[in-house]
Parts: sequence; structure tokens; C-alpha cells
Amino acid sequence: MDNFNFYSPTEFVFGRGRENECGECVKRYGGSKVLVHYGSQSAVKSGLIDRVRKSLAASDIEFVELGGVQPNPRDTLIYKGIEICKKEGVDFILSVGGGSCIDSSKAIAIGTLYDGDFWDFYGTGKPVEKALPIGTILTIAAAGSEGSGASVVTKEEGMLKRDVGSDKIRPRFSILNPELTTTLPPYQTACGATDIMAHIFERYFTNTKEVEVTDRLCEGLLLTMIKETPRVMKEPDNYEARANIMWAGTVAHNDIVGVGRSQDWSSHVIEHELSGLYDCAHGAGLAVVMPAWMEFAYKHDVMRFAQVATRVWGCEMNFADPEVTALEGIACFRRFLKSIGMPINFEELDAKEEDIPILVEKLGLGDGKKPGFVDLSSADVAEILHIAANATI
Amino acid sequence: MDNFNFYSPTEFVFGRGRENECGECVKRYGGSKVLVHYGSQSAVKSGLIDRVRKSLAASDIEFVELGGVQPNPRDTLIYKGIEICKKEGVDFILSVGGGSCIDSSKAIAIGTLYDGDFWDFYGTGKPVEKALPIGTILTIAAAGSEGSGASVVTKEEGMLKRDVGSDKIRPRFSILNPELTTTLPPYQTACGATDIMAHIFERYFTNTKEVEVTDRLCEGLLLTMIKETPRVMKEPDNYEARANIMWAGTVAHNDIVGVGRSQDWSSHVIEHELSGLYDCAHGAGLAVVMPAWMEFAYKHDVMRFAQVATRVWGCEMNFADPEVTALEGIACFRRFLKSIGMPINFEELDAKEEDIPILVEKLGLGDGKKPGFVDLSSADVAEILHIAANATI
Repeated sequence: MDNFNFYSPTEFVFGRGRENECGECVKRYGGSKVLVHYGSQSAVKSGLIDRVRKSLAASDIEFVELGGVQPNPRDTLIYKGIEICKKEGVDFILSVGGGSCIDSSKAIAIGTLYDGDFWDFYGTGKPVEKALPIGTILTIAAAGSEGSGASVVTKEEGMLKRDVGSDKIRPRFSILNPELTTTLPPYQTACGATDIMAHIFERYFTNTKEVEVTDRLCEGLLLTMIKETPRVMKEPDNYEARANIMWAGTVAHNDIVGVGRSQDWSSHVIEHELSGLYDCAHGAGLAVVMPAWMEFAYKHDVMRFAQVATRVWGCEMNFADPEVTALEGIACFRRFLKSIGMPINFEELDAKEEDIPILVEKLGLGDGKKPGFVDLSSADVAEILHIAANATI
Repeated sequence: MDNFNFYSPTEFVFGRGRENECGECVKRYGGSKVLVHYGSQSAVKSGLIDRVRKSLAASDIEFVELGGVQPNPRDTLIYKGIEICKKEGVDFILSVGGGSCIDSSKAIAIGTLYDGDFWDFYGTGKPVEKALPIGTILTIAAAGSEGSGASVVTKEEGMLKRDVGSDKIRPRFSILNPELTTTLPPYQTACGATDIMAHIFERYFTNTKEVEVTDRLCEGLLLTMIKETPRVMKEPDNYEARANIMWAGTVAHNDIVGVGRSQDWSSHVIEHELSGLYDCAHGAGLAVVMPAWMEFAYKHDVMRFAQVATRVWGCEMNFADPEVTALEGIACFRRFLKSIGMPINFEELDAKEEDIPILVEKLGLGDGKKPGFVDLSSADVAEILHIAANATI
């Protein structure tokens, strides 16, 4: 196991009706003038935003509102948010939505307390020195942004998707009410589940030896997702299954199951180019990329792939030929994705194989390699994308 | 799943040599005058306390020292610590030791900022309003106190063991260096492992339905303990096995695997009377009590016991008679405890069956019941203790 620091100070406020406590939560963490940042009109129509307003008002907290966050959140709305926060003297951001909304809020939190362009911090490694405090009310189990110090946003000019990571943008509190996710369309539910599973797998495939405890915790989360996701696809308003997925989604990404080990975020990085170019759902892009990455990478450590195949997918171990088991595990994953309505190849994603050179070019590896479980050159990325383009079950 | 709040703001600083960063850590969390509180002379002899002194001095932090914490830490030393902190103007406590030392430090932290007797908070439910900040350097994987808001201490008069729980006494940081645990005697190592497993089991046996995610995480931690504990018994200086146990011990008790479900702490409560009366090691007492509690309680939910038997102990499910599987799982646990050198009955613990009425009396249930997975009357506790007294494998 490698040395590590683990720090997850976010207070998670979980369960039915907890959004009605958002005013008290903001007050507890020192907010007095709030930007309520949200995405689609569904949050308004469902009455959620109204409940937020009532809770804030009941705690004597002033607020301004900014809706309209899109999936793959754009810099243009972020600049608008920063302007509002500066002008109105906002001292706390309450983000009501999914990963896109929370990531947008994090960017606004950084930009409000910075004299230059918030984009300076994205994809550059420039350390964030301060940010407004954030709270969240999560409406989709997926990104894990409610418990992480990460933010991914998109610059409209060139549709560049870049990220930043800092403890300064970890939410002070996150309200997780599984009821809020029961009205999600099936496709979005499945995209969220895929994203959660990717967060686990990208921690699981490691070159660090002797990581039994985090292996076992990752496997436990994957087993949960495999049991609960098909249930919510069939019964969208099954609170218990939604609750298990929601907590799994948070634990999957606050890094408690990924500490002390090398991780491999290649699938996420490659997918960001897909959703950057096609504006597809992040989870859908991952469903196409991740099994392809696995088929490309499994020979690097056949026994690790055999381990997940047997422990998680319930495959029989082929002791004479572990490679058979390893490949069967990957096939199980792709069949699972298909079964929950995810695309598994370029055609189903509305992507084009002939765009692969553009995707590789945008990733910007040049002659270099992206380090990871397996180091990837531009040619390797192209190969993974060709596997993804033509995948079948 | 039940509604819950989860809050674990402690920064965990994990790995080789990390104790040398304790000065920086204290500074980061605002300490300027520290009480270094530790237990046995082994921390001094091993050079650990000297490394602590150097690190504090390098960060220009003043400190006073108080050693001598015993297992089942006593109020007498706590009063002494409080006196020192008040007199010397201590603003931060650095606890160097295991659960006893950390729990003693938490009591000092409460007592220093309270005008009355710190004991007022123990076993009474009186809420803690303030406490000095604490940091820890953990020297034994066991109690989980490094990541919890709990403290258990013993009043010498009558050897009363009582506890308190509050977010105010959660450590600001905890330094976990598995190297520090490699010199532990085998018996203490095994006691620690038993305590960790008890923390998991006491979350696992729940009456809350639909808790797949926390079930799976608990099972993952148990599988880790079952794999790694025998390794460290054979190879005490195996860093990797020590590291996996150490992180499992922390995750087992900061409640991330126990949220949203009823829990049952009967074994801990009953054991506290055993170690209170006989001053035996807490883990050793648990090894005797916990399987006995399981044999008493399993009929309440045979399938839950069959689940852990198959998923964790690798038992074959007996579909015709699940009770057989449930009992086989409990037998596996007791054989495991025996295999790592733990006592499994009163004789091996140096306890006396004729003392059972005294133990039951001290527990103080009277005509009431202790609520839990199974509600326990005084007669039930006596029955569990009789099972424990006479257990064999």
C-alpha cells in the first residue's frame, strides 16, 4: 500500500425530506447570502426549488438564483455566476442538481474569490488558494461531486473539457435524498450508474500490490451496483434501491475506497473527448469506452481481471486458463451495460469511427504517453477507440 | 435504509514515517501549546516520543508530556491531564498510543474546557459543548478511536467503564503508520483484530432492511481481516498486512460502513463489564462474548447469519436448512479467534462463571431491556454469559 492522506470533511445529510434542512445547513456552515445554482426547469417544476426557498427563508438567509446549468457545464454560465456572486456579495453557494451543476458551482466558487479567469485553474495544476464555501442538494446519483474536491467543466470555444482538484472546493455539506432521484428518466439513471461503476473500476485497476482492504471495498460497491441498478430500471420509484445506489455513488468517489493505490483514469479522460465532441451523456460515453479499455489493458494483469470476474461477476475461475475468466468478466460488464440500456459501441452512441483521429488529436498526447495501469500512447488510445467503435455482445 | 448524518472530518495521514509530520499537522490545525499524552514506556524506548519531540520542535510548537496511560484508561490520570492542561495553557492534545490513550486524551480535552467534573458526560448522554482539539499518532490497530467521536474510560472507584460520543472530540488529524504496529506482542495484535471485527459485526447485525451497500462494505472489511490477521500473526513485521488491517480498523469504526441502519452494541456493552471486573484486554473479552451473543441471537434472523456465513466465511449454503449454515458461520468465527490465540471461554479469560450475577448486576439493566437486534433482559445477558463461560470449539 502506498502512503496517502485522506480528508473528506463534508457532512452528508441523507434521507427522505432532508432538503428541507438546507437553510439550517447553510447557517451551520456560516452562509448568510446564498447563490442557489441549479440546472433544468424540472427542479423548479417538481417544487424542489420552492422547498429550498422556504427552508432558506425560514433560516433568515438571503439568496439569489441562477438556473440553466447544462450537462457538460459551460464556462459562459460560470462567468455569469461569478458576476452575480461578486455583485451581490454572495458568501455561500447552494448547488441543487447533479454533477454538472455541482461542478459548475465549484467553478463559480473559485472564480468569485479570484481576480483573473477561473479557467486558469482547469487542466493546469495551478493550486486553488481560496473558494467560496459550497453546499449541495443532489438530484442524481452519478458524478460523486457531492463528496469530492473535483470539478470538470467545458469551455464552449472548442468544446474543451478540463478539470481541477482541490480540498478548497469540497462541499461543506451535501444533502442526499434518494426520493429526488425517483423521477429521473431511465436513461439518466443508467448513465449515473455507469459513471459510479467507472469511478470504482478506475480505482480498482491498479499497479499497487497488497491492497486487499480497498480491493474488497471496491468489490462491495460493485456488487451493490450490480444488484440495485436493474431494480431501479424496473421500479424507478423503489426508494431502497435508489438509496443504496446513492450512498454507493458517494462512497465510490470520496476516495475512501481508492486510497493508497495507483489509479487509472484513462477511461474518464478518453470519454471526456467523446462527450466534448458529441455532447453525449458522460455515462453513455463511459459505457462505450470502459469495456474497450479493459479489453485493451487486461493482458497487463490477467489475474486482477480474473479476480474481479470471479468475486464481482460471479464467473467460475478457469484455473487452467485465467485469461478466459478475465475476458468473461469484461463480457459480463458489457452485457450488464447493454441490459440497463446503455450504448456499447459508436453507432449506438451516435459517434463516428472516422472521427477517431480528431478525438486522439484533441486528447493532446502528441508523442507522449498517459501514465496509468497501462501507459497509453496516441496509437493506443486510437486502438481503444476502434475496439469501442465496433464492440458487440 | 434509515435517514442519517455522516460526518468524518478527520484528516488521515497514512504510511511509513508519517509521525515525523506531527509538528506540521498540529500547526495546520491551529495548535501552539501541546500536551503529548502517551501510554507505556515502549513509546519512549522505541524512539517514537523522541521523533514526536523533534517534529514539534521543528515546527516551533511548545509541549508538555504526560505518559502512563493504562489499558482501560483511568479517571485518575485524566484528572492529572486536565490539571496540567489548565495550568500550562495547553491548546491542543497530541495522543500517541492506542485506543486507551486516545480515549483518555478525549476525556482530558472535554475536562479542560469544562468547569465541572469531566465524568458528568460519561454514560449520561449530556451533550459535549466544547473540547480542546486533538490529533493522534496511532500505535495499535484496534479501537477505531482515531477516526471516531467516541471515548470509553474507567472510573477507578468501582471500576465503572462508561462512554461518551460527540463530534467535538473527533480528532482533527490521525497519523497512521503501520510500521509502528509491527513490534506489538502477538496477543495485543490479535486483541486489536478482534476489536475491529466486533466493530464490523455490531454494525452488521441490524434490523434495518435493504442495506445492501453497507452490508457489502462490512463484508469486504471482514474478508480483509480474515485474510490479513493470520498473516501478521505469522509475520509480525509484514508491513502490507499491517497496513491493510490498520486502514480496515479505521474504516470499520468511523461509521461509513454502518450508516442508515440500526446497530447492536450488546457485545461491547457486556464486554465492558468483563474488562471492568477482571481488567482483561477488551479484545479478549470480546472474543469470549461475541460468538456467545451470536449463538443467543441468531434465531432472530437466521438468513442474515446464513448470509455472513456464506459471503464472509465461505460456508456452503444449506438451502434445505439455513440454520445449519448460520451456526457453521458462528463456529467459523470462534475457530478463527482461537487460531489467532484469543480466549474463547471464561476459563481461558481467567473469568469465573460464579461471577455472572455480579456482571449482570453491574450492567444495571434491572427489570428493563437493552434494545438492539434482539432486546436483552438481565436474564438474557446471564444466558449469553453462561454460553460464553462454557464455549468450546
